Amino acid sequence: MSLVVQKYGGTSVGDASRIRDVAARVAARRKSGDDVVVIVSAMGDTTDDLLRLSAEVSPNEHPREMDMLLTAGERVAMALLAMAIQDLGVEAVSFTGSQAGILTDTTHGGAKIQDIRPFRVREALDAGQVVIVAGFQGVSPDTKEVTTLGRGGSDATAAAMAAALGGDVCEIYTDVDGVFTADPRVVESARRIDEISFDEMLELAAAGARVLMPRAVEFGKRFGVPIYVASSFNDGPGTWVKEKTMEQAIVRGIAHDSAATKITVHGVPDRPGVAAALFEPLAVEGVSVDMIVQNVSQSGITDISFTVPREHADVARTVAEAMASEVGALGVDVTSKIARLSIVGSGMRTEPGVAATMFRELADEGVNIDMISTSSIRVSCVIDESDVDRAMQCLHRAFGLDGDANGE
Amino acid sequence: MSLVVQKYGGTSVGDASRIRDVAARVAARRKSGDDVVVIVSAMGDTTDDLLRLSAEVSPNEHPREMDMLLTAGERVAMALLAMAIQDLGVEAVSFTGSQAGILTDTTHGGAKIQDIRPFRVREALDAGQVVIVAGFQGVSPDTKEVTTLGRGGSDATAAAMAAALGGDVCEIYTDVDGVFTADPRVVESARRIDEISFDEMLELAAAGARVLMPRAVEFGKRFGVPIYVASSFNDGPGTWVKEKTMEQAIVRGIAHDSAATKITVHGVPDRPGVAAALFEPLAVEGVSVDMIVQNVSQSGITDISFTVPREHADVARTVAEAMASEVGALGVDVTSKIARLSIVGSGMRTEPGVAATMFRELADEGVNIDMISTSSIRVSCVIDESDVDRAMQCLHRAFGLDGDANGE
Repeated sequence: MSLVVQKYGGTSVGDASRIRDVAARVAARRKSGDDVVVIVSAMGDTTDDLLRLSAEVSPNEHPREMDMLLTAGERVAMALLAMAIQDLGVEAVSFTGSQAGILTDTTHGGAKIQDIRPFRVREALDAGQVVIVAGFQGVSPDTKEVTTLGRGGSDATAAAMAAALGGDVCEIYTDVDGVFTADPRVVESARRIDEISFDEMLELAAAGARVLMPRAVEFGKRFGVPIYVASSFNDGPGTWVKEKTMEQAIVRGIAHDSAATKITVHGVPDRPGVAAALFEPLAVEGVSVDMIVQNVSQSGITDISFTVPREHADVARTVAEAMASEVGALGVDVTSKIARLSIVGSGMRTEPGVAATMFRELADEGVNIDMISTSSIRVSCVIDESDVDRAMQCLHRAFGLDGDANGE
Repeated sequence: MSLVVQKYGGTSVGDASRIRDVAARVAARRKSGDDVVVIVSAMGDTTDDLLRLSAEVSPNEHPREMDMLLTAGERVAMALLAMAIQDLGVEAVSFTGSQAGILTDTTHGGAKIQDIRPFRVREALDAGQVVIVAGFQGVSPDTKEVTTLGRGGSDATAAAMAAALGGDVCEIYTDVDGVFTADPRVVESARRIDEISFDEMLELAAAGARVLMPRAVEFGKRFGVPIYVASSFNDGPGTWVKEKTMEQAIVRGIAHDSAATKITVHGVPDRPGVAAALFEPLAVEGVSVDMIVQNVSQSGITDISFTVPREHADVARTVAEAMASEVGALGVDVTSKIARLSIVGSGMRTEPGVAATMFRELADEGVNIDMISTSSIRVSCVIDESDVDRAMQCLHRAFGLDGDANGE
């Protein structure tokens, strides 16, 4: 008998019939003898509908009330799922984030889980009940206010709850079959990955793979809870994310992120403190800077380029322009017609020349590389947006990810 | 400076534009110097939509999860209203029933308010904020579960909150201009009542007047908080409900209730215990019996008639048929083609002959009276459903309620 935490996303509980399907899966698992905790997101478009409604009411930001509003979404989904599970002869009870003891900091709209005190969850499990917990939400013990966790919050709820309960596995059910070697919409020959390490998954997620949020992976890694990602629409196998994988891959997968903007400050006088003059105010404005490249200085003048998420582009441009005029730079260029392409694999640590292979393959394909950054298990290149599909297909083939290469 | 509790119903906050209208009313009141607590219902059809969704998911009853589901409705409305009020430069904060300290018994779907401990409400008022509280919901301290108050729950929340805070007035805003001498859809000459006593309002509400729920009036009466009923769609005057009215009316208003079913057990042996044999099992089944008439016994045989709300008709018929066969009665008749017509006025206490006038007027109008019941300030007659409009118009005229009779 295991303790399983399952998470179902919004499309998995998109309508009444889907909710009954999920209930059947949960009830079958419970009847097999496992203790089951289910984390659930708001149904389908609920969150978007609530956001649209709030935009109709008010053009302004109301973080505290927005969290109050949005948390109604999971409330609906969890109550309906509990009903459907009960209908199958399995006892079930739903809890809000607050009732489930999910304690967060005070940041409305992007709260971080600080602690989980799942007294009521534990009690209900001991009574043999399936426990449904609202994803994405918690409560701040400091302010007694309801908070939401921001993007990827339900995955984080699931992994953190699994850690807090000492669960055996955290299962993330979604609308795809698992983690793939590349986005199958771009690379037709992309294959589902059987096993991937926490570190590789973190790099892939940060590089743009949307299937699993980095926050959830971090909880799994920190507390040693394996995560299983699979489809809620079929019973096929999924992807295991865990500490150690059976096989070390040189390149486990390829990810791309087209939602970035590149900003270049031209003709910056190359003297101590210019980089700080740019990146300190960006940090103050809350802009998350991804890649940074500073050209080799020529006659005391250099260019600094960096990428930011597209939603931070306007703020970043304003900051860059202020810095440019302050230090006497020549000007600022902004482009969103770029994409970041990353290859990830823990085998890179011991296998030299992976980055070189990547650059050679892209060159042979006629793809120009604009910026480069690396970690010990990742190489990322910024390229022109129009080259992305071709570049991904070429690297997927070059690193042996096509066809049966993944052991399938 | 007063402490005002206002309640806005579902139609009053039916869409984004209506919510902004309500926000403007609330903000103006706050800016005039009053402390304001607002009780809000779910928007328009939200509750019906949630009920339909739950029916799609499950055909069964799930009282605890149904309350979890339905309480999402007020949550949405209260958060949006708080945003809209803040946009007008007035600080506002929304609280769930639980956060506002509305403590109930454990009955899901029909909980009774047992106590209100409005610590957070008081704190927010002291900080100068408008406080929005979800109507219709509370929390049971015994089970720590979220509960709903059932029909008329938001009115009850408002009156109880006004009582707990020592408020100066409880204002109920709705889609009509106040309490009328009769339903204006039936009696064209019906007039808004300026003032009505708690006792009269209780009788009118019990007799079928829908504008204000008896539970709210009971709170007002018990704690001496006057209630003001008015429209949220205009600024016209409404109706004051209070302990003593300036003028005592012989007949303050007329109400009718067409949602009743009459059940008659024929040929009941007239011996001790037969009434108990009928009404005890009805009570056990939770059927609320309204009027009861037992004919004068002839040759040791009698008829017992009673009325019940239409939704209890099937259960009541089953119970009555079982009792009939048990005591050897002749049979059971059921009809829903009836209506109950009531005249209400505290002046009846001292004015003899009001009932006689009612019966005479109905007789002159050719309306047959089927059953009669009275209280010290009310006379009710059950008549044929098809006679209702004519009977109401005739009584409205006969008791001087037409035209300027109400002082307008």
